[in-house]
Amino acid sequence: MAGNSIGKEFTITTFGESHGKYVGVVVDGCPAGLPLSEADIQVELDRRIPAQPKIVSGRIEKDVAKILSGIFNGFTTGAPIALIVENKEIDSSDYEAIKDLPRPSHADYPARVKYGGFNDYRGGGRFSGRVTVTLIMAGAVAKKLLSRFGVDVLAYTRAVGKVKADKKFSAEEIRKNRYTAATRCPDLACAERMEEAIVTARKEGDSLGGVVECIAVNVPVGVGEPLFDSLDADLAKALFNVPAVKGVEFGLGFRVAELKGSESNDPYIMQSGKVATLTDNAGGILGGLSTGMPIMIRVAIKPTPSIGKEQKTVNLSTMENASLSIKGRHDPCVVPKAVPAVESAVAITLADHMIRAGLIPKVLERQK
Amino acid sequence: MAGNSIGKEFTITTFGESHGKYVGVVVDGCPAGLPLSEADIQVELDRRIPAQPKIVSGRIEKDVAKILSGIFNGFTTGAPIALIVENKEIDSSDYEAIKDLPRPSHADYPARVKYGGFNDYRGGGRFSGRVTVTLIMAGAVAKKLLSRFGVDVLAYTRAVGKVKADKKFSAEEIRKNRYTAATRCPDLACAERMEEAIVTARKEGDSLGGVVECIAVNVPVGVGEPLFDSLDADLAKALFNVPAVKGVEFGLGFRVAELKGSESNDPYIMQSGKVATLTDNAGGILGGLSTGMPIMIRVAIKPTPSIGKEQKTVNLSTMENASLSIKGRHDPCVVPKAVPAVESAVAITLADHMIRAGLIPKVLERQK
Amino acid sequence: MAGNSIGKEFTITTFGESHGKYVGVVVDGCPAGLPLSEADIQVELDRRIPAQPKIVSGRIEKDVAKILSGIFNGFTTGAPIALIVENKEIDSSDYEAIKDLPRPSHADYPARVKYGGFNDYRGGGRFSGRVTVTLIMAGAVAKKLLSRFGVDVLAYTRAVGKVKADKKFSAEEIRKNRYTAATRCPDLACAERMEEAIVTARKEGDSLGGVVECIAVNVPVGVGEPLFDSLDADLAKALFNVPAVKGVEFGLGFRVAELKGSESNDPYIMQSGKVATLTDNAGGILGGLSTGMPIMIRVAIKPTPSIGKEQKTVNLSTMENASLSIKGRHDPCVVPKAVPAVESAVAITLADHMIRAGLIPKVLERQK
Amino acid sequence: MAGNSIGKEFTITTFGESHGKYVGVVVDGCPAGLPLSEADIQVELDRRIPAQPKIVSGRIEKDVAKILSGIFNGFTTGAPIALIVENKEIDSSDYEAIKDLPRPSHADYPARVKYGGFNDYRGGGRFSGRVTVTLIMAGAVAKKLLSRFGVDVLAYTRAVGKVKADKKFSAEEIRKNRYTAATRCPDLACAERMEEAIVTARKEGDSLGGVVECIAVNVPVGVGEPLFDSLDADLAKALFNVPAVKGVEFGLGFRVAELKGSESNDPYIMQSGKVATLTDNAGGILGGLSTGMPIMIRVAIKPTPSIGKEQKTVNLSTMENASLSIKGRHDPCVVPKAVPAVESAVAITLADHMIRAGLIPKVLERQK
Repeated sequence: MAGNSIGKEFTITTFGESHGKYVGVVVDGCPAGLPLSEADIQVELDRRIPAQPKIVSGRIEKDVAKILSGIFNGFTTGAPIALIVENKEIDSSDYEAIKDLPRPSHADYPARVKYGGFNDYRGGGRFSGRVTVTLIMAGAVAKKLLSRFGVDVLAYTRAVGKVKADKKFSAEEIRKNRYTAATRCPDLACAERMEEAIVTARKEGDSLGGVVECIAVNVPVGVGEPLFDSLDADLAKALFNVPAVKGVEFGLGFRVAELKGSESNDPYIMQSGKVATLTDNAGGILGGLSTGMPIMIRVAIKPTPSIGKEQKTVNLSTMENASLSIKGRHDPCVVPKAVPAVESAVAITLADHMIRAGLIPKVLERQK
Repeated sequence: MAGNSIGKEFTITTFGESHGKYVGVVVDGCPAGLPLSEADIQVELDRRIPAQPKIVSGRIEKDVAKILSGIFNGFTTGAPIALIVENKEIDSSDYEAIKDLPRPSHADYPARVKYGGFNDYRGGGRFSGRVTVTLIMAGAVAKKLLSRFGVDVLAYTRAVGKVKADKKFSAEEIRKNRYTAATRCPDLACAERMEEAIVTARKEGDSLGGVVECIAVNVPVGVGEPLFDSLDADLAKALFNVPAVKGVEFGLGFRVAELKGSESNDPYIMQSGKVATLTDNAGGILGGLSTGMPIMIRVAIKPTPSIGKEQKTVNLSTMENASLSIKGRHDPCVVPKAVPAVESAVAITLADHMIRAGLIPKVLERQK
Repeated sequence: MAGNSIGKEFTITTFGESHGKYVGVVVDGCPAGLPLSEADIQVELDRRIPAQPKIVSGRIEKDVAKILSGIFNGFTTGAPIALIVENKEIDSSDYEAIKDLPRPSHADYPARVKYGGFNDYRGGGRFSGRVTVTLIMAGAVAKKLLSRFGVDVLAYTRAVGKVKADKKFSAEEIRKNRYTAATRCPDLACAERMEEAIVTARKEGDSLGGVVECIAVNVPVGVGEPLFDSLDADLAKALFNVPAVKGVEFGLGFRVAELKGSESNDPYIMQSGKVATLTDNAGGILGGLSTGMPIMIRVAIKPTPSIGKEQKTVNLSTMENASLSIKGRHDPCVVPKAVPAVESAVAITLADHMIRAGLIPKVLERQK
Repeated sequence: MAGNSIGKEFTITTFGESHGKYVGVVVDGCPAGLPLSEADIQVELDRRIPAQPKIVSGRIEKDVAKILSGIFNGFTTGAPIALIVENKEIDSSDYEAIKDLPRPSHADYPARVKYGGFNDYRGGGRFSGRVTVTLIMAGAVAKKLLSRFGVDVLAYTRAVGKVKADKKFSAEEIRKNRYTAATRCPDLACAERMEEAIVTARKEGDSLGGVVECIAVNVPVGVGEPLFDSLDADLAKALFNVPAVKGVEFGLGFRVAELKGSESNDPYIMQSGKVATLTDNAGGILGGLSTGMPIMIRVAIKPTPSIGKEQKTVNLSTMENASLSIKGRHDPCVVPKAVPAVESAVAITLADHMIRAGLIPKVLERQK
């Protein structure tokens, strides 16, 4: 069974390759009656590429979102929404040369084995970060839907390599600043240091990883479908499908392992007539269900595996050791591009689960 | 859509509550022709409860596995395999008293909201660690199936609170020692220190968390179904459904965020005529596909939220602040019980994905 | 991917074989807050076996329903409901003798090929009419749920062999009479003639088929999820999974093929302030959506393939022609037993789709 | 949960409306290594519109298939294949006028209720026969895949209104003639009489229905996943999703209800060393599994509900009785267009189930 769909109520199916003609996504299950336009998609898509060209690849992918179906008179109809972006500026020449030389820590080698050599290897094909374009388009629909129910999903860069933002950010601060700096860190001074680190790595023919955080505020209590479609489980699943993610944690995450129960438990307290917790070490999820507190997620992003430095590899045609120096156009750090992708993955999962929980209806309103 | 099933080829559906009559699981999609008996299930089930009573709850759940269907003449038939365990020694008296007082960092509160108050709250109901019994029974089937294809899944305790095992373990060492000590750490000296830490926490009316690691060896190249059913994504999903898990990472995990690409990339090399990597920082998965190298997973387990110490909570009936001191019988640390649950979650996911990849056939052999 | 589950919101998973220890079913997705007891299941189960022993097999399967999970204080909890029946009076001796001789028009031969010879062939195993016990148990839950929303599902026998009931039945008449006569025909005089036909066929060592009809009243407008989960499509799918069904039609069904549009169209008319149709040739479904008019389904049931008369077959061990005379205990006509199975299949599908359409909430009420 | 996808291994997701910009489909799960071009899709698409304009609607939809993804160097890659057709010659003016007047026996009324009035009602929107374009494109992929394994799916017209072809057709005859005549009947003389009947109906401002038959030859033994994904169940589900289908039967279908078991059973016999049956009353399926004999399906198609004659309806805005005479461009009989749609629905289902049964591998061959 192929795996290019995700979600059980708000279901998205993606298609397209890095160097193919189009990348696209079909969103099935968006309730009828949501105002939606190509501009709504475009604004999110534009967040993928920072304005400053210093820290991204030479390939400036000006992506234009196009809606093929599912909208009538400016509203969703309940029918599937197909969204595409045409791939432009494709230069596949670099890839032909290294077809038999799998790039270390890329999917080249296992993909070739899995698909019997038929996979489109150009630019990583289906395994390219380019596919996050489809995630972001679907995420734009999810975010518009969630916003109608007061839910806001906010991702931002916490760390790039060894440069870390230390302070706690308020939702307001993140909302306002996260797409201001090229590195997507709401602490704008720190954002600049991150940018310098990336520029340095690029000069060295090297690359950097980092940490992206994401909060979701105003998620109602009881979202999630344990045992096996727990909210954290489905969020983690969506996030590990974002290229380069190697770790996902909620609330205190791995830090909780060293604490005692009396230190990590979140005591309940009545707050303005509502049940709240004094701390949110759980990251807003208990037993796979949302608690009503902010959901807090941290995601580890690995350094871009495409680097200029020479690396050891093997020649899959001759089955001999070889070496490789990757030319092409590559981002020295994918963390900034990962920010909207993480935001989208979280929004898509929340939209799906809020519909599943019966908290978003199938028709948002009824026309006269 | 309810969420009590997981897996698309090797699909399991669980049922049962902590203080209900039975817990059970239906395994659908196990290929025909696998020898399977109740003893195969029992041996894994017995690993859930360490022999030493010092570090587990007073409730000694002697669980007896029973096969209801799907086996004929000692072999799987291709029909669904239903497995149950009767719940014994149930004492629900403690729970009636605290019905309106949600235990901090348990699912009590969100579950009550989600199910309108109809959920079986006794002992945590569906949210109890007791449901891992069903995971382990299904995992026993998955492990037997995988072993036929040379795949071995091995989980063990890496840390309990601040006590950590430092050394790198070989598969052989883990296989041999992981169920020897009550704390499931293959380093038996360290295992003893972990036990002491747990005993101390229990005396203090407190609890501990820890880290469980799991490796899977001999997984063939190309297992996983990106974009959205990536192998790591589905492993993470299964693992976050194990109660108390707050973080999941592969290979270097969060540590990779600080490295450069030249440090974290795994160079390819020919090894005995096969493609291998010099390091396994990726944890055996790239682009959502297995690479043929050992899969390496780390899981953060939070401290048991049920502690004897007095905690703040609220009364959901009066909507006033309250306090709570949990009596009952509780494990001061669930890490040891989490080990076979993690092993099972990983095995179930791998069995599912190896069938999906066409690497395990629907019928294992043909009778004359 | 194995196929022992059906439904996307109200999902059932069955297990068990004709001559195994148990048959059972897990119902996942039943909303919380529905009163449900073993007696509710038992009353439907008892309808499977007509009181008169003349027209059923010698095997009098006294089936006792047992609930393993999912009920607390007499209400559904939102957790999966597991239901089992123990198989009694199993006599497998007849089957050993004919193990290599596939019974004509039974699943013996394709099942043996599919499962490599590992399938439990005794009594037809998974392919026995006995598995409808699990359908009926799940159907009992679905019917109780639907009744809360005013929806009633009523199946009955329209024809047995060449004996047909000619008159149009009102819902009231069907509701009252359908389980009165052993042959499940609401026209009690006709029911008697059907019984005579069955008794005659049995004496001849032969068997009969027939036609079962099913209506569903008070289904709201707009139930169904086109394109591919159209209401009629999913009803047909569920019905073809009832053993012995060879045809399914809605409204006029095949008779519509000979009519003109002006004859078969159902004109709209206002009726007591509501939109209705003057005729219901469509059987209550248009474009895969319910119209609010009664849903009307007809199902063709083939004659029991197990007959006493000698039949040609082949020996699968020697691969030579052979002959076979089936002894054992067999119903000379499965139409009466098919009636509650059809009713259940329709009820399960409607429950599933009413939840999908948002017309049944996830929690039926909220406890104080 | 929305329902615009079907299939579990060979999964298709459709999008697009009759008067929207595009209709399209994403095929996920087609094995890698199948040669596929736009011409392969186009040839099937062209079969939808008979060359003779007499019996089809004035709207001559010249549909041009375009592949957006999933093909590389002329072969499928294992990635999803997105296929679209641009809608041209759209004239929606007729529909605005009758927006509030639901056409009898169309989906207009239930769709309006279901989607709160937001559905695209122009030309029937998602409920138009136009969506079969997407079925046919996906069917073209399925047929090409099946043909590699010797499986051929052949649909044809058996009856139009009261004009019926009486003779039994050989696979060869169907293969050769079915797309010769505009009415898609392999008996070319009968095909002409069908055409005359359609022309007459059109003149009368009326419409006709009919019967489409479909055979599938060389399907291996054991395809199908009972209990609930039985082969006949999934074929019926796919077929009822073809617009205008009101009945589906296999083999003798409803005729079997009047026979005795001794008349309807298919005796086994050895034939050239293989197991065969003397008759094929079962239509090639027993217990939900293919038997290796030809699969034989009959489908009832209702008359086009859009007719010129005046009909009763209601005004949904004023909630008063009204009348309606449909102008626009409509096929007086959709049977000819249904033929390739039926063929596609059957092919898609068989491709899905042959992969599920492990009879089609995930990679068709391996490149050097």
